[in-house]
Amino acid sequence: MKKTILSGMRPTGKLHLGHWVGALSNWVSLQKDYKCFFMVADWHALMSEYKDTSLIQESALDNVADWLSWGIDPEKSIIFIQSQVPEHLELYMILSTLTPLGWLSRCPTFKEQMKQLKDKDVNTYAFLGYPVLQASDILLYGADYVPVGDDQLPHLELCREIVRRFHFIYKKEIFIEPQPLLTKTPRFLGLDGRKMSKSYGNYIALDEPAGSLKEKVLSMFTDPARKLKSDPGHPEVCNVFNCYSIFKPQRSKEVRQWCEGAHKGCRQCKEILAQTLEDFIAPHREKKETILKKKNYLRDILEEGRRKAGRQALETLREVRELLKL
Amino acid sequence: MKKTILSGMRPTGKLHLGHWVGALSNWVSLQKDYKCFFMVADWHALMSEYKDTSLIQESALDNVADWLSWGIDPEKSIIFIQSQVPEHLELYMILSTLTPLGWLSRCPTFKEQMKQLKDKDVNTYAFLGYPVLQASDILLYGADYVPVGDDQLPHLELCREIVRRFHFIYKKEIFIEPQPLLTKTPRFLGLDGRKMSKSYGNYIALDEPAGSLKEKVLSMFTDPARKLKSDPGHPEVCNVFNCYSIFKPQRSKEVRQWCEGAHKGCRQCKEILAQTLEDFIAPHREKKETILKKKNYLRDILEEGRRKAGRQALETLREVRELLKL
Repeated sequence: MKKTILSGMRPTGKLHLGHWVGALSNWVSLQKDYKCFFMVADWHALMSEYKDTSLIQESALDNVADWLSWGIDPEKSIIFIQSQVPEHLELYMILSTLTPLGWLSRCPTFKEQMKQLKDKDVNTYAFLGYPVLQASDILLYGADYVPVGDDQLPHLELCREIVRRFHFIYKKEIFIEPQPLLTKTPRFLGLDGRKMSKSYGNYIALDEPAGSLKEKVLSMFTDPARKLKSDPGHPEVCNVFNCYSIFKPQRSKEVRQWCEGAHKGCRQCKEILAQTLEDFIAPHREKKETILKKKNYLRDILEEGRRKAGRQALETLREVRELLKL
Repeated sequence: MKKTILSGMRPTGKLHLGHWVGALSNWVSLQKDYKCFFMVADWHALMSEYKDTSLIQESALDNVADWLSWGIDPEKSIIFIQSQVPEHLELYMILSTLTPLGWLSRCPTFKEQMKQLKDKDVNTYAFLGYPVLQASDILLYGADYVPVGDDQLPHLELCREIVRRFHFIYKKEIFIEPQPLLTKTPRFLGLDGRKMSKSYGNYIALDEPAGSLKEKVLSMFTDPARKLKSDPGHPEVCNVFNCYSIFKPQRSKEVRQWCEGAHKGCRQCKEILAQTLEDFIAPHREKKETILKKKNYLRDILEEGRRKAGRQALETLREVRELLKL
């Protein structure tokens, strides 16, 4: 029997190439070998976006349209919105009652996020419980694996600790201790060389229109040491070269030669990259348009996902309720 | 139009005379002038009882049977179980996202309870959020008033602060800031002179059988200075006298004379009190028996309560969701 995977994205704006490189491309491959639950984590989004919630609902649908157009297959995977399955909050409450405060306040990701999201004011009760809600998400579907980056390992370890404490208190092992599925993703940066992020405005959306795509690529930072076209460049420090190596690796060698041999200038190199990315994005962008045009298509997929995820979640929760005599 | 009241009890064991004196008698009177929501706060019970959940479900039904047999009228009031209305957890999550951690960790009742419930290990994530869940309970039903004792005032103030912050962030005033309905209740103690409490084993249940009732009353502590029947007693320090003044005030004067004049000994005084309490309890105990015998009666009342409470809660939550565009 296939092992189960749970993964989610917070609907906080448009998806961009950073999401593809860091998560979505991996999701697409995982579908072959695993039973996958892909979740729109809208409660998690609310935890940081509560001061401006205007994007959550609209992003939820837009992101799912991206998932589908980039290769998530609703015949294989279960796609659903977290808040549409009420069991997430019920198990969250049950796990909350047995999670020591110190486990959460000492969690390194909590401290880190407090620093990073200074402008978001996330020193709130809900945000402290972020990993408990994640644990609920994972345990409801009996996920064997959770795809994570290094930075998310403490959350998964916390989930495993919660499972052990639950089993210890209620004297029955009903949950699977989820394992991390560490994914090595290539380093991928935004137009300006910082992390690609909506809030930095340095991103290329997964449905970026051809026009703005070209404009964005032409604005990319390149090797700052290469002042003249005749200066040899340093591909290893150039973000444009990095894009080639990710999205068109078969051309890397050639690009390296242009650059180090000063055969082509940065402008021309970026023009070619713009076309490369346009070729890469265009079919998905068109597929997304088709998806969004089909009336009720998205809604039906999400309804089907809600039904399937809900059935599984209810089954788990029934077992929990029975064990706790609730 | 009648003002609305929300109040609840945690189903953690049998109800006793302390509950009657401290809360239930007040609930019964409030029904005349207010629209009352009376809630079995089972999520709140789980917060302290998670290590031994065996009593929660059974207490829920038993307590409601007591409520009904002591005068809560399902024709007038809405009686429901918190966990059967999923909106409680949804609004709880939404309020959690905007409640600063410091408001909770600095809440005096949290610190106090941590001390008092040392054996319960309540230094948990859920327990910290106790007042946020209370806020959700109150706001879902638009309660104008919440009957509270002095010790619960900080929770209600916290609820009002959450309301103000919600209105400030979302720029629309959709909630009522609930006001405390301070209830002066007489001082009432357990058999041994400590607070009447299930965990001290010093209580008289609301359905105490005649036999054990007499036994319990005869075991009550009286004025320790009155060693012989011929010694004059001091009613003002005697717990037995206190019981007369609460449950048979019209006899207080007479009892005071017995005691101060050394006309009757403590044993006889307690025998008469036992009969007084038996007369007080018996009709309710019998009514409870009838209620528990009627098949489906309790279930139907709770189902009706769930329906009515659920309708109101959903209406409130719809307004919240719309405002937040969720």
